[in-house]
Amino acid sequence: MVSIFTQIVNGDIPCHKVLEDDQYLAFLDINPTHPGHTLVITKQEIDYIFDLEDNLLSGLMVFSKKVGAAIKKATHCRRIGVVVAGYEVPHTHVHLIPTNSMSDFNFALSRRADQEELAVMATKIQEHL
Amino acid sequence: MVSIFTQIVNGDIPCHKVLEDDQYLAFLDINPTHPGHTLVITKQEIDYIFDLEDNLLSGLMVFSKKVGAAIKKATHCRRIGVVVAGYEVPHTHVHLIPTNSMSDFNFALSRRADQEELAVMATKIQEHL
Repeated sequence: MVSIFTQIVNGDIPCHKVLEDDQYLAFLDINPTHPGHTLVITKQEIDYIFDLEDNLLSGLMVFSKKVGAAIKKATHCRRIGVVVAGYEVPHTHVHLIPTNSMSDFNFALSRRADQEELAVMATKIQEHL
Repeated sequence: MVSIFTQIVNGDIPCHKVLEDDQYLAFLDINPTHPGHTLVITKQEIDYIFDLEDNLLSGLMVFSKKVGAAIKKATHCRRIGVVVAGYEVPHTHVHLIPTNSMSDFNFALSRRADQEELAVMATKIQEHL
């Protein structure tokens, strides 16, 4: 059984895509803590971030930096928070979270987002890429 | 006024060092959420992680991966959580946090650690490097 993220990569499950290249995919979290909350994944299904080989790990961060800059412009937040947890989906994913204070680092703030809202946000972020 | 982390890099403030090279320094957080909670910083004082140029950002993660592997062995945790917030010290730092579940991602768990405890933990992590 492949991960839900591999199913997204394969196009078997839809997502609100922000950016993609041959190794990485960024798409909006459907349960964002804040509007613009984005997940960046490796297309290769590897559970634990620190099992990525150095080049793939480095590329993941450089790709996240590019996406993060666009989210920051689109949401006018102070900083993009970066969190890698990995307890929910066993497929490496970096949370890029628009934050304005330390209290924004709280997964209890997650709420199921409206599909229309996500579509509008994905377009807004893409305009800054 | 340089950051408190630059003062640590310069040796003006002591720390419980875990690993160091010419560009990065890892040391124990004095207010850990969990024993083994480590900060990895760039020696260069740059406030926001995504302002790091690509090579420095990549190297920061590869260095963190090395440190994270040692913390994982020393603490027997399930995963090293990775968090970059940046609201407390304006100098890029990656939190490497020993975690066993999603609820371990909570900065409200921070407690001032005993110096002796930190010294013992730093040695324990270094044994796995």
